[in-house]
Amino acid sequence: MSASAEHFPGVRTLRFEGPDPKDTLAFRHYDPDSSERVEGRTAREHLRFAACFWHTMRNGLGDPFGAPTALTPWDDGSESLDNAKRRVDAFFEFLTKCRIDFWCFHDRDIAPEGRTLAESERNLHAIVEHCAAHQRAGGAKLLWGTANLFSHPRYASGAATSPNARVFAHAAAQVKHALDATKALGGLGYVFWGGREGYTSLLNTDMPRERSHLARFLGMALDYAKAIDFRGRFYIEPKPKEPSTHQYDADAATCLNFLREFGLFGRVSFNIETNHATLAGHTMEHELTVAVAANSLGSIDANMGTPNLGWDTDQFPIDPSLCARVMLVVLGMGGFTTGGLNFDAKRRRESFEPIDLFHAHRAGMDAFARGLRAAAAIRADGTLAEFVRRHYRSWDDSLGRKIEAGEISLAECERLMRDEPSPTLESGRQEMLEDLILRFV
Amino acid sequence: MSASAEHFPGVRTLRFEGPDPKDTLAFRHYDPDSSERVEGRTAREHLRFAACFWHTMRNGLGDPFGAPTALTPWDDGSESLDNAKRRVDAFFEFLTKCRIDFWCFHDRDIAPEGRTLAESERNLHAIVEHCAAHQRAGGAKLLWGTANLFSHPRYASGAATSPNARVFAHAAAQVKHALDATKALGGLGYVFWGGREGYTSLLNTDMPRERSHLARFLGMALDYAKAIDFRGRFYIEPKPKEPSTHQYDADAATCLNFLREFGLFGRVSFNIETNHATLAGHTMEHELTVAVAANSLGSIDANMGTPNLGWDTDQFPIDPSLCARVMLVVLGMGGFTTGGLNFDAKRRRESFEPIDLFHAHRAGMDAFARGLRAAAAIRADGTLAEFVRRHYRSWDDSLGRKIEAGEISLAECERLMRDEPSPTLESGRQEMLEDLILRFV
Amino acid sequence: MSASAEHFPGVRTLRFEGPDPKDTLAFRHYDPDSSERVEGRTAREHLRFAACFWHTMRNGLGDPFGAPTALTPWDDGSESLDNAKRRVDAFFEFLTKCRIDFWCFHDRDIAPEGRTLAESERNLHAIVEHCAAHQRAGGAKLLWGTANLFSHPRYASGAATSPNARVFAHAAAQVKHALDATKALGGLGYVFWGGREGYTSLLNTDMPRERSHLARFLGMALDYAKAIDFRGRFYIEPKPKEPSTHQYDADAATCLNFLREFGLFGRVSFNIETNHATLAGHTMEHELTVAVAANSLGSIDANMGTPNLGWDTDQFPIDPSLCARVMLVVLGMGGFTTGGLNFDAKRRRESFEPIDLFHAHRAGMDAFARGLRAAAAIRADGTLAEFVRRHYRSWDDSLGRKIEAGEISLAECERLMRDEPSPTLESGRQEMLEDLILRFV
Amino acid sequence: MSASAEHFPGVRTLRFEGPDPKDTLAFRHYDPDSSERVEGRTAREHLRFAACFWHTMRNGLGDPFGAPTALTPWDDGSESLDNAKRRVDAFFEFLTKCRIDFWCFHDRDIAPEGRTLAESERNLHAIVEHCAAHQRAGGAKLLWGTANLFSHPRYASGAATSPNARVFAHAAAQVKHALDATKALGGLGYVFWGGREGYTSLLNTDMPRERSHLARFLGMALDYAKAIDFRGRFYIEPKPKEPSTHQYDADAATCLNFLREFGLFGRVSFNIETNHATLAGHTMEHELTVAVAANSLGSIDANMGTPNLGWDTDQFPIDPSLCARVMLVVLGMGGFTTGGLNFDAKRRRESFEPIDLFHAHRAGMDAFARGLRAAAAIRADGTLAEFVRRHYRSWDDSLGRKIEAGEISLAECERLMRDEPSPTLESGRQEMLEDLILRFV
Repeated sequence: MSASAEHFPGVRTLRFEGPDPKDTLAFRHYDPDSSERVEGRTAREHLRFAACFWHTMRNGLGDPFGAPTALTPWDDGSESLDNAKRRVDAFFEFLTKCRIDFWCFHDRDIAPEGRTLAESERNLHAIVEHCAAHQRAGGAKLLWGTANLFSHPRYASGAATSPNARVFAHAAAQVKHALDATKALGGLGYVFWGGREGYTSLLNTDMPRERSHLARFLGMALDYAKAIDFRGRFYIEPKPKEPSTHQYDADAATCLNFLREFGLFGRVSFNIETNHATLAGHTMEHELTVAVAANSLGSIDANMGTPNLGWDTDQFPIDPSLCARVMLVVLGMGGFTTGGLNFDAKRRRESFEPIDLFHAHRAGMDAFARGLRAAAAIRADGTLAEFVRRHYRSWDDSLGRKIEAGEISLAECERLMRDEPSPTLESGRQEMLEDLILRFV
Repeated sequence: MSASAEHFPGVRTLRFEGPDPKDTLAFRHYDPDSSERVEGRTAREHLRFAACFWHTMRNGLGDPFGAPTALTPWDDGSESLDNAKRRVDAFFEFLTKCRIDFWCFHDRDIAPEGRTLAESERNLHAIVEHCAAHQRAGGAKLLWGTANLFSHPRYASGAATSPNARVFAHAAAQVKHALDATKALGGLGYVFWGGREGYTSLLNTDMPRERSHLARFLGMALDYAKAIDFRGRFYIEPKPKEPSTHQYDADAATCLNFLREFGLFGRVSFNIETNHATLAGHTMEHELTVAVAANSLGSIDANMGTPNLGWDTDQFPIDPSLCARVMLVVLGMGGFTTGGLNFDAKRRRESFEPIDLFHAHRAGMDAFARGLRAAAAIRADGTLAEFVRRHYRSWDDSLGRKIEAGEISLAECERLMRDEPSPTLESGRQEMLEDLILRFV
Repeated sequence: MSASAEHFPGVRTLRFEGPDPKDTLAFRHYDPDSSERVEGRTAREHLRFAACFWHTMRNGLGDPFGAPTALTPWDDGSESLDNAKRRVDAFFEFLTKCRIDFWCFHDRDIAPEGRTLAESERNLHAIVEHCAAHQRAGGAKLLWGTANLFSHPRYASGAATSPNARVFAHAAAQVKHALDATKALGGLGYVFWGGREGYTSLLNTDMPRERSHLARFLGMALDYAKAIDFRGRFYIEPKPKEPSTHQYDADAATCLNFLREFGLFGRVSFNIETNHATLAGHTMEHELTVAVAANSLGSIDANMGTPNLGWDTDQFPIDPSLCARVMLVVLGMGGFTTGGLNFDAKRRRESFEPIDLFHAHRAGMDAFARGLRAAAAIRADGTLAEFVRRHYRSWDDSLGRKIEAGEISLAECERLMRDEPSPTLESGRQEMLEDLILRFV
Repeated sequence: MSASAEHFPGVRTLRFEGPDPKDTLAFRHYDPDSSERVEGRTAREHLRFAACFWHTMRNGLGDPFGAPTALTPWDDGSESLDNAKRRVDAFFEFLTKCRIDFWCFHDRDIAPEGRTLAESERNLHAIVEHCAAHQRAGGAKLLWGTANLFSHPRYASGAATSPNARVFAHAAAQVKHALDATKALGGLGYVFWGGREGYTSLLNTDMPRERSHLARFLGMALDYAKAIDFRGRFYIEPKPKEPSTHQYDADAATCLNFLREFGLFGRVSFNIETNHATLAGHTMEHELTVAVAANSLGSIDANMGTPNLGWDTDQFPIDPSLCARVMLVVLGMGGFTTGGLNFDAKRRRESFEPIDLFHAHRAGMDAFARGLRAAAAIRADGTLAEFVRRHYRSWDDSLGRKIEAGEISLAECERLMRDEPSPTLESGRQEMLEDLILRFV
């Protein structure tokens, strides 16, 4: 990496200024240089922010009804390797200036697709080298990599779940290259998002056969990772639909079923995205709780949606309450290990100037820093946890323990209860607890 | 069962009149007396219609904003056993006149709840005797029974998943009685619908602990069934929400995950409901396909919703296309064994006269008879199946077979494809196939 | 009103304690006794909190799948006038202790329905007297009254829009009594919520005729108000559906169309509810902005929903960001005149103890006090307003002024622009502005 | 128009074969050559099918996650006029072979945008000439034209509602050219679809000012139409959202409010689209009924959506029940005058072969022909209409007539009803009526 031109001239590295900043680009909550620890880690160590190459560098902000609007002066619009490298330069400059420690990529984002897989691999290799140089020079680390198995027309009917076996093989080859690249960049994880692994119409779809192919595909990737000694963690990224009408990896529970069915449980964990959770009809904290309960939460795609819109808006997570609820779950599992908070988020189409990239990421980082502080305060306060403990205390008594231990039958329960008055409950105090949380946000 | 008064005077037993009937109450499509066979069974043998006691006899058609409207001249509104028996009489008269062969019940629908479980059991026993007499006299058979574990305030925070262990024990006792009743009535199945087995707020909920209690509860019921030699099939009825904010048995895949996690897979199958499928963001045929692929489709709650309403409207399934798609899946698995088509459906609040019960059920029966004929014709025609077979034919060739057999690695795929041109797809022909289906409806 | 028994023993009048209270029932943000003014008014004068009789006193917390759970020791469950009076006593005690200045009612909430309208009127009159005595003794004032035209089976197919003209006349009589009662209690407004004024099925509905009846009904009510010199403001409360499949007063714009069509625009304004806005697919601030732009925002039903639930959950508005956005619009129109913030909100079914009423209302009041402070700070800061002013500044230049004045034609625009380069936009800075708002919440 | 090459070789002009066709491309229901009349017109005269240039010729079937897949051998991918003409040739060949009588266009679909409006006009003019030649040679007629005011980045924040007045002027110029083109082609109508006329965020939006600009824009277009003696009808096409978060023309009622507010009511009517209706939370028949009641239904965009997808899928209307309900409303208003059934519909991304265009349109045409026959049969049968007439018969009696005539006051209603028993309703018979409809589909 040579001394490249400055692509965001006039933007200084973001600084922390506290709650009443003079600079709209200053952090109000996130202080990356603070040594203050919460539950044993600094905010920076907890939050592990990542930016993604696709939205930050390659999303022109087009939509189904409109052309791209994003201004990208560093990009000449060509498919050349030089242009690809310049994008990488701009990205690493952005990461540094925005104080973001990690990044994520798709293979086809960072390097142009060639006429053959062999040519694509050469392109990818060249750009990976360029990225590695940035990393060696102190740039952000790779949180995870992945392969784009959904944009090209060959994947119109799925990649691992294509009706065409050669498409499967092509996709497998592409994943091999993506895994090689991820390993070369020291990636901490590898993500499978199966946007086309599902169906548009059940009429022309053999669902059981396709699901078994998907399992085979994952298994082959796991085997290859072992073969090359790639030690990063594998994540499935659940999403229920869009672009497909129905995606096999619909939500965390559906994916767990899939993993258990095909003997993959425990070998693959999850990258959970907020907007995907809401598209599936869940809250983000539901999905995270399901994943953590199965010891399967790996990483998070930190964005948010608009409640009354039915598509993936991938907005920046500018909601401190949401961030607090997310961080409550993350702290509850002891914090991230290989994962982090990846801003899989894009600006609105009308926010097309380069400086909007900084405004948007900064806002998301501050919201999460505020959420982290709130979550830690809720835990330190202890009222919520104590309420829950007391709420279930009958399960720690003799009857509860006996049931949990499997030492009582239906008939015994009947004998015990048949002449008893109806048991009475205590209030669940939902409104009090909802307010309690907000006290700390 | 004595010779009781007629509760639907003036309504004759419904007859088949064909497509252009004089009587609006005549069957246009369903001929229960036809000996014509489709795939080896008569329409009656395939469809196995059931009516449910709760909607037909106990749903006064109230809603969250309004009082009951249903006219039920046979019901004096009391909680007496005499009144309960009269309701049973009216119900069996309805079943006979409507040519419905099966029925379903909740314990608390058919018999009044007592002050203690012991008293409730005595009430239940008396009514079960009364129902059994009707059955012996040639009345409809019991498709399945179940216990109401959601209406009483004691279950406000769940039954098997209550924070109170005594509530769990009370529910267990209630299920014992319901299983006894179901066995006494020769029931072919037993359903678990866990309307309160979930949460309203995650803040006061210990999801992992609650889910383990739910598994324990199912296991105890299975053990008890074995102990009393009840050979009916157990079904979970998935639903994502309502009355809860999130129900643990959200959809078929989520339930499969639960069953696999707790070692119950294969011991419990599903009763799938159309409106629950749509509330979960799925089509009915999706849920059925998921269930059949896991060899877990037991029975069907045959109703439908209104697409833009977000609650369970439980409308009668008056849509021949939907019925055809349902019956395609049912025929595809070889037809029902212990299950059937239970009209878990209610009239609109404005359709409050007794005769509306006949109109509504008759319409649903005709729609399904039409759907059955269409589904059989689609299968006999064979074009659809042949299209799918050809669409996946590459998986029957050498590369496909090798992948399916696990005989190829990622690296081998890469060697195979690296210099190849991109594979090309064939059209999925969705619009042609959608139209093809309609040709037979 | 005699010195009645205490119905909430052990609950003291709520006090302000600030951000770090010892008492979970203390206000953290709302200080009803503070003389601090924001834009000319105290928080108390701005917020004008109201509680509603129906949710607070009459909602047993039943749901479509479960019986009531609420504990109401003051209520003997009877339909007697004594019981009705005791409920009123409990309500006014609650209002006083909770520091709520206003209340709202339906006729049938506060007084039992008789066998005839005449008897119902006598009951209503007796209770109105009782309420008036509480008011004279320093109790809360009446924000608005209304008639329940949706619960009784006679209204199953609508009240003003019933297919039965006698139902219309019955409803008209009921509204006369409700208006008399509202005037007697010094009510500042009168609300029309037409829960049944719509349809379940278009097949049996004559929509144009029904809408004209609805207009006639409103006109008759306006005429009567004039006749009795009732000077309160009339509000329509938009809602799109539930219990109906489609309600004529679907949202603010739909109601404006209705008012304009029938010559009622300007004579009736709106009571906007958050959860109704979201059921209609809007944000609350959208509905408020539409109403304010038409000079038609009267009052607010301050609650909130759960995004992924499709029914009216009427939760307490425990979201400071939402409250800030609401108060931004309210401050923008110069504050309330006759209206206020009515908590049309109920506790969850699991929060069934009397003390939960205090927790829930207190939480909502604090959230709105926090929202008010944030909204005022955003306005005082001025950055947001200045951004918008600049964003539209071209409309204050010559071309913009000419267009707005109607002084330029299509052909002139064409001549002006035909050889010009494409105009360029400035960024909308959405993410920066979203974050800016949060800075003050 | 010279004798051009055949662009759909091997596809013969579609023919009618009846219910059991040998050719999957044959009409089963639609016989364009039949002289049979229903309510005075042939099926062809009633249905007035149109295809749209944008989906049929210009939609490459890309989606937000994937590249175009459509095979278009006639299109060299260039922006040349020659290529544009070749597309027109292919389109007219398609229309003729598919037996479609009308077409619709956006300005930028048919002709390439130039560097200036002047150059764009020259391009448009050239292509309009080419289309006119096809029309003169017996090709399909123009149902309506429109301008694309949403794709270009200049329109990112709206066209008529842009914060930039020069964008308004640019859009006005573009509409002038589009109106000139529509007139030149003998277009029967002109459509305004305001995909960007709304907002993504209220924070940076001055809604009242923008709405007044939108009204000004429509007024200017109406004035210009008068100036050039364009006698086609103007239609607004309502849609609630996508690509915007909220569109000002959200649904029919919202548009009616807008038209009434700005004095445009009666001068602009509606082009109603099925999928837009469902995105707005309505049924198609609701939107059509609202439009017809205001004498404002002009034309129909005949497509459909997928119920559980939250974006505009623009599928072909392959649902005979839906088509029957649509045609019931159309027959009820006496049939189309200037409007017709425009297939604003696209194939799924996986149906990318040219022949799929024929399959899809043919299926939609047959579904509507079947729907027309069903609707006519329902009307001829008369049961439904007679039910509704009787259901409202009390409004034709003395009390009902008096109310409708405004001859009775609230106080008089009260006197009349105060001692009367509660009025009783008749059943709404929803299930019977829903089934009745299906009898004819």
